Amino acid sequence: MTDFTYYAPTEVVFGKNSEEKIGKLVRKYGGTKVLVHYGGQSAVRSGLLDKVCAQLEAEGIAYVKLGGVVPNPRVSLVRKGIELCRKEGVDFLLAVGGGSVIDSMKAISIGVPYEGDVWDFYTRKAFNTECLPTSCVLTIPAAGSEMSNGSVITNDEGNIKKDYCIDEFRCKFAIMNPERTFTLPAYQTACGVTDMMMHTMERYFSHEDDMEITSAISEAVLRTAKQQAFVALSNPEDYEARTQLMWTGSLAHNDLTGCGTSGDWATHMIEHELSGMFDVSHGAGLAAVWGSWARYVYKLRPTRFARYAVNVMDVPVDFRDPEATALAGIEATERFFHAIGMPVSIPELIGRPATEEEMQKMAQMCTDGDTHTVGVFKELTSADVLEIYRAANR
Amino acid sequence: MTDFTYYAPTEVVFGKNSEEKIGKLVRKYGGTKVLVHYGGQSAVRSGLLDKVCAQLEAEGIAYVKLGGVVPNPRVSLVRKGIELCRKEGVDFLLAVGGGSVIDSMKAISIGVPYEGDVWDFYTRKAFNTECLPTSCVLTIPAAGSEMSNGSVITNDEGNIKKDYCIDEFRCKFAIMNPERTFTLPAYQTACGVTDMMMHTMERYFSHEDDMEITSAISEAVLRTAKQQAFVALSNPEDYEARTQLMWTGSLAHNDLTGCGTSGDWATHMIEHELSGMFDVSHGAGLAAVWGSWARYVYKLRPTRFARYAVNVMDVPVDFRDPEATALAGIEATERFFHAIGMPVSIPELIGRPATEEEMQKMAQMCTDGDTHTVGVFKELTSADVLEIYRAANR
Repeated sequence: MTDFTYYAPTEVVFGKNSEEKIGKLVRKYGGTKVLVHYGGQSAVRSGLLDKVCAQLEAEGIAYVKLGGVVPNPRVSLVRKGIELCRKEGVDFLLAVGGGSVIDSMKAISIGVPYEGDVWDFYTRKAFNTECLPTSCVLTIPAAGSEMSNGSVITNDEGNIKKDYCIDEFRCKFAIMNPERTFTLPAYQTACGVTDMMMHTMERYFSHEDDMEITSAISEAVLRTAKQQAFVALSNPEDYEARTQLMWTGSLAHNDLTGCGTSGDWATHMIEHELSGMFDVSHGAGLAAVWGSWARYVYKLRPTRFARYAVNVMDVPVDFRDPEATALAGIEATERFFHAIGMPVSIPELIGRPATEEEMQKMAQMCTDGDTHTVGVFKELTSADVLEIYRAANR
Repeated sequence: MTDFTYYAPTEVVFGKNSEEKIGKLVRKYGGTKVLVHYGGQSAVRSGLLDKVCAQLEAEGIAYVKLGGVVPNPRVSLVRKGIELCRKEGVDFLLAVGGGSVIDSMKAISIGVPYEGDVWDFYTRKAFNTECLPTSCVLTIPAAGSEMSNGSVITNDEGNIKKDYCIDEFRCKFAIMNPERTFTLPAYQTACGVTDMMMHTMERYFSHEDDMEITSAISEAVLRTAKQQAFVALSNPEDYEARTQLMWTGSLAHNDLTGCGTSGDWATHMIEHELSGMFDVSHGAGLAAVWGSWARYVYKLRPTRFARYAVNVMDVPVDFRDPEATALAGIEATERFFHAIGMPVSIPELIGRPATEEEMQKMAQMCTDGDTHTVGVFKELTSADVLEIYRAANR
């Protein structure tokens, strides 16, 4: 294992009616004028937005609202949010929604005190840690952004998707009420399950630097997500299953599952180009390419894939052949993705095969014109990435 | 499951040479004059204390030292520490040691700004949250105090052991270098393993409010502690095993294993009287009474004990009889305790049977003269506690 730092300071307030604590929490963490940031109409229709605002009013805290965040959140709206915060003297941010809304909020939080354009952080032209304090009311378990240090934003000009990660992005508090996820459509529930599993798997398939307690916890996270997905899909209002998925999504991405390991993250990089180019759901994009990535790399360390197959996917051990066990685990994962309604190829994802030109463009963008590799388990060049897109295109 | 709050803000810096970051971390968290608090001579002999002080000096941070913390740390030394901090204008505390040193530091941290006697907090005569910021360099994985909200102190007058728990006690940072645990004697290593397992088991054996992800993670923690104990005992300088035990000890008591469950904690309460009266190691005391507690209560929920038996203790399922599976799991746990050199009875713990009078006194103290019950899984009266002491006295 490698040395590590673990820092997950977010105060999680979990359960029914947890929203009722919002006012006091904003006060506790020093907010006096809040930007309430949200997505589409579902937060309005469900009454959640009104409830949040009523809590702020009850505590005598002023606020302004900014909605309209879309999946793969756009830098154009972030810029609007920054202007609004400056004009209104906002000193505290509250996201009401899922990963896209939270990521958009984080981008606003660092843009407000910065003189240049906020996109500079995402292109590594600028590096700052000064930002407004952030918080959230989570409604979609998936991205794990409620406890993570990351923000992923899409630039409308050119559909480029980039991330920026600093500890200062971590929310002061996160309100999580599983009831808020009862109305999530099946497809979005499945995308969320895939995303949280992939956050764990990206860390699980690492170099030779396994850490046993981290591996064991990761397997617990993966098994739980897998089991509870079927329960939540067959009964969307099963509070217990929604609870497991909601908390599992946070644990999958608050760094707990990465303590002491190098991680990989190639699948995420390969997927970002897909959702950047085709505006598909991140979770579905991950499911569409993971199997192709896994088959491309598993021979580097078949025992790790075999352990995953047995401990997560309930594949029987083939004692004479770890490679066969590994492959059976990859196949079982794809069967699982299909069973929850996820694609396991690009044609299943976008409704047609990608063209060779599209795949070449994505492979180039993924590696910034072949200037760097992606992934750690195997360091992939743009040629490797192209092979993986091709394999996923069948 | 029940609603919960999860708050574990401690910045963990883990690995070889992590001590080299002490100066910068104290600075980051605002310390300008530090109390370096430690135990006996081992921190001196190993050179760790000198290394810590050199790091502070390199950063230009003033400090005073106070050693002499003993296992079951005494309120008398805490009072000395409070006086010293006031006299020297200390504004930041750094514990170098294990749970006893950290708990003693936490008591000092809340005593400094309080006008009355610090013992008031432990007897519930006073309630405050104002305290100096705390931090630690951990050298004994066991108590989990490096990330927990608790402090357990013994009053020299009457050997009364009491706890006080507030979020403000949580360390700002915790430095963990597994190499520092290479020299731990086998007995202390085994006590530590028992303590971390019991921190998890106290939360695992709860009312009917299980939470699947928490159960699965708890089982991962327990299995890892169990496996790695044998490795560390047979090769005390196995860095990998020491790493697993050190991080597992923190995860066992930073509330992760209790999210959404009510927990029990009867075994801890029953043990506190033993270590209060006989000044034995807390971990050994837990091992000495857990089996007797478990046999006294398991019939209330045999399926939970059966799950533990199968998922943690590798007991084969007796499909016709969950009670038999449960009992086999309790026996396997006691065999495990024996295998790592822990007692499983009071005579094994203190070298003689306790007298009936001693047991009656402990049962009374444990329930504050029968004014309250202990435990949640089963609410135990002083008569129940006495039965458990008697069963453990055979």
